[in-house]
Amino acid sequence: MPLKLYYASGACSFVPHTLLEAIGEPYEPMLVKIHKRENYESAYRSINPRSQVPVLVDGDEVITQIVAIVTYLAERFPRMGFLPTEPLAKTRVLETLAWMNNTVHPTFTHIFMPQKFTDNPAAHADLKAHNTGLYRGMLGELQALATAAQARGWAWLGGERFGPLDAYALTLLRWGGIAGIDPAGFPVLWAAVQRTAALPHVVRVIERERLQLNLYQPPRT
Amino acid sequence: MPLKLYYASGACSFVPHTLLEAIGEPYEPMLVKIHKRENYESAYRSINPRSQVPVLVDGDEVITQIVAIVTYLAERFPRMGFLPTEPLAKTRVLETLAWMNNTVHPTFTHIFMPQKFTDNPAAHADLKAHNTGLYRGMLGELQALATAAQARGWAWLGGERFGPLDAYALTLLRWGGIAGIDPAGFPVLWAAVQRTAALPHVVRVIERERLQLNLYQPPRT
Repeated sequence: MPLKLYYASGACSFVPHTLLEAIGEPYEPMLVKIHKRENYESAYRSINPRSQVPVLVDGDEVITQIVAIVTYLAERFPRMGFLPTEPLAKTRVLETLAWMNNTVHPTFTHIFMPQKFTDNPAAHADLKAHNTGLYRGMLGELQALATAAQARGWAWLGGERFGPLDAYALTLLRWGGIAGIDPAGFPVLWAAVQRTAALPHVVRVIERERLQLNLYQPPRT
Repeated sequence: MPLKLYYASGACSFVPHTLLEAIGEPYEPMLVKIHKRENYESAYRSINPRSQVPVLVDGDEVITQIVAIVTYLAERFPRMGFLPTEPLAKTRVLETLAWMNNTVHPTFTHIFMPQKFTDNPAAHADLKAHNTGLYRGMLGELQALATAAQARGWAWLGGERFGPLDAYALTLLRWGGIAGIDPAGFPVLWAAVQRTAALPHVVRVIERERLQLNLYQPPRT
């Protein structure tokens, strides 16, 4: 039975989506229309009661959480090198992946969906403004990571092979555009993201999810 | 050179602190006084520019992020069984660990340090109230996990062995007390946490960090 991935267009499910596409074996991409709140319908909640994407289904097993899905795919398809095998190198990738997932990603959620944190609409503008400042700083940290990877002669953020950090960095910088942050302000990171976006398996995912890579719109003067 | 752990009393660094104490080999616990803002001083920022605990130092290597530290310790000390070795079982533990770390933990941060998310003090009470409701629901999810583990005949949350989920669950339920949530409202989880707190190596960490397990104070009538 092929693996099945529940994803939403442009969400962080892009990360496992690109890994599955890279593997080159048949899998079923299952679109969840979050803008139509399909993730809150009972059909989807019976798969993931937390109403989130991504969800990876392998036979009877339902796996949530990017860190868990990435680790599972890395061990199931070791030839792909999604995670380094040397313990310290693997730890370094997990460290950055965890930070993207528990810090950068939720900082964007405060900008994009402030209603998740308070139902007082008066506080939403404050949350957006404060977290946009934080997010800009975090994209600066990502740019420093991309610069350090380049200095080591690495082709990708986690080492010699394409992996989850590259796909997540693309997602996070792309979200910056939604927050009014110009990706061109982070030239090393932006170049790395554009190289990722040009990989054939990433091109296919971008087409399936119908993504525009650069969502930044300069303020009208 | 022994491993070194930077920890703060009662913080999530409790998780690797209990793992290191369980191993039984010499290590250096390094207290960071967060209430004195030592984590923002240049000495600590030179170790972790993000000013967070935990930090694990192994020789010249500085490792941050609980998920990364736990994975590193699990691979370095396989006899401890901190993570299952069977891929699917390991994925299940990582899934819960990631959720605790990227969802439950930051929900508490909104209650404990709302200033991290907005510098408008008027919004702080809203953030606290809304996230206290969310946090209560998440402790309910943890109680369901503890109940499911018990139904499987497992002694601990992740399986047959003490591991990171047990230490994190203790920390999260303990924080609930700070948020005005009575641990007795989650009897299966509270019993599991009390069993964890009675383990000799956990007792030693609780003593070193000078923790009171139940911080709940009933409202005065």
